[in-house]
Amino acid sequence: MNIAILGTGNVGQTIGSKLIAVGHSVRIGSRTATNEKAAAWVKSAGERASAGTFADAAAFGEILFNCIGGMVTLDALRMAGAANLSGKILIDVSNPLDFSKGFPPTLSVCNTDSIGEQIQREFPDALVVKTLNTTNCKIMVEPTLLTGDHDLFMSGNDAGAKATVREMLESWGWKTIIDLGDITTARGTEQLLPIWVRLMGALGTANFNFHIVKA
Amino acid sequence: MNIAILGTGNVGQTIGSKLIAVGHSVRIGSRTATNEKAAAWVKSAGERASAGTFADAAAFGEILFNCIGGMVTLDALRMAGAANLSGKILIDVSNPLDFSKGFPPTLSVCNTDSIGEQIQREFPDALVVKTLNTTNCKIMVEPTLLTGDHDLFMSGNDAGAKATVREMLESWGWKTIIDLGDITTARGTEQLLPIWVRLMGALGTANFNFHIVKA
Repeated sequence: MNIAILGTGNVGQTIGSKLIAVGHSVRIGSRTATNEKAAAWVKSAGERASAGTFADAAAFGEILFNCIGGMVTLDALRMAGAANLSGKILIDVSNPLDFSKGFPPTLSVCNTDSIGEQIQREFPDALVVKTLNTTNCKIMVEPTLLTGDHDLFMSGNDAGAKATVREMLESWGWKTIIDLGDITTARGTEQLLPIWVRLMGALGTANFNFHIVKA
Repeated sequence: MNIAILGTGNVGQTIGSKLIAVGHSVRIGSRTATNEKAAAWVKSAGERASAGTFADAAAFGEILFNCIGGMVTLDALRMAGAANLSGKILIDVSNPLDFSKGFPPTLSVCNTDSIGEQIQREFPDALVVKTLNTTNCKIMVEPTLLTGDHDLFMSGNDAGAKATVREMLESWGWKTIIDLGDITTARGTEQLLPIWVRLMGALGTANFNFHIVKA
């Protein structure tokens, strides 16, 4: 399948490499067609990897991963173009982390809204699925790095899109993916970030994840 | 030990009964000295239980549990009186849940502040320890209701106070209590509530808790 990665940071490159490894073709998108990080990634990722603008990548992808920082996501998606998102699954991995006041970050959007909802409102023809945003990118693509049960969360309005994403993530090794409900439930997972960043400090590692234990 | 419970709801009564069961004397406080729920609890809880105003209870307690709803916590603590909190451990179990717009609730305070911090700022001589607020009251007092490992979080400025609270909670059966740091880290646990309420819907039970799985 042809898949678009929007964003050339760690998260985008890591997911892109995973998708290549399992047989997909991946175009990574950024603000310019000549992004150096994108070019370096393409060189290392092999012949099924390519790079372009956000619009180039979005036009190429049958499924899209939003791996752009939450604060600049809407801008980047406008550059990608609504027509290039229409009818497609858009997997939103972003978090509204605002580092402008230092560490730990605050959230640029929270409580009564979320990045997931903002995307879905502005691009009503995209099938937004919020997931993967509550763990780090190494674990996203290789959940077996952690021993024992641990869980992902998923939010979105379209049941078919969620089923497709679930199937992909299960093929990566995810065992428990909890469907929280419609896209408004992205408020729940985005607001996990404040404890996530503090747990990273308390535990001395970013390689951890949440597991929900029930009676 | 003499312990105060501020708040006569489910959480206050459940923690109060636990404290009685393990040998403490408990005074439960409310706005009035003649609160019916408090009177009924005292009758069922036995001779080491008593009731009174917030100020009566706070004066009685060597340690205090704040089991009042987050939105009215500061008002209630003002009624308890700063002098009655001074130098004492105040275990803040509250969450800033605002149900005025329906379910799921939003948060009345979040992102750049927390109820834990508000209490500590207004009552600088109290030793505020935020904990227990991320699971339901049945599990708070009987963590072995859930099989498998699951965790509590703790925030506070005073190491000695946190050690005392940790010892008490471990005696209730808590095995892993993660110290997130100073009271500002209460933002992390209070902002867990948005996913907590949605998990309750997705899982069909309130009897669950978080476990942090690390590499």
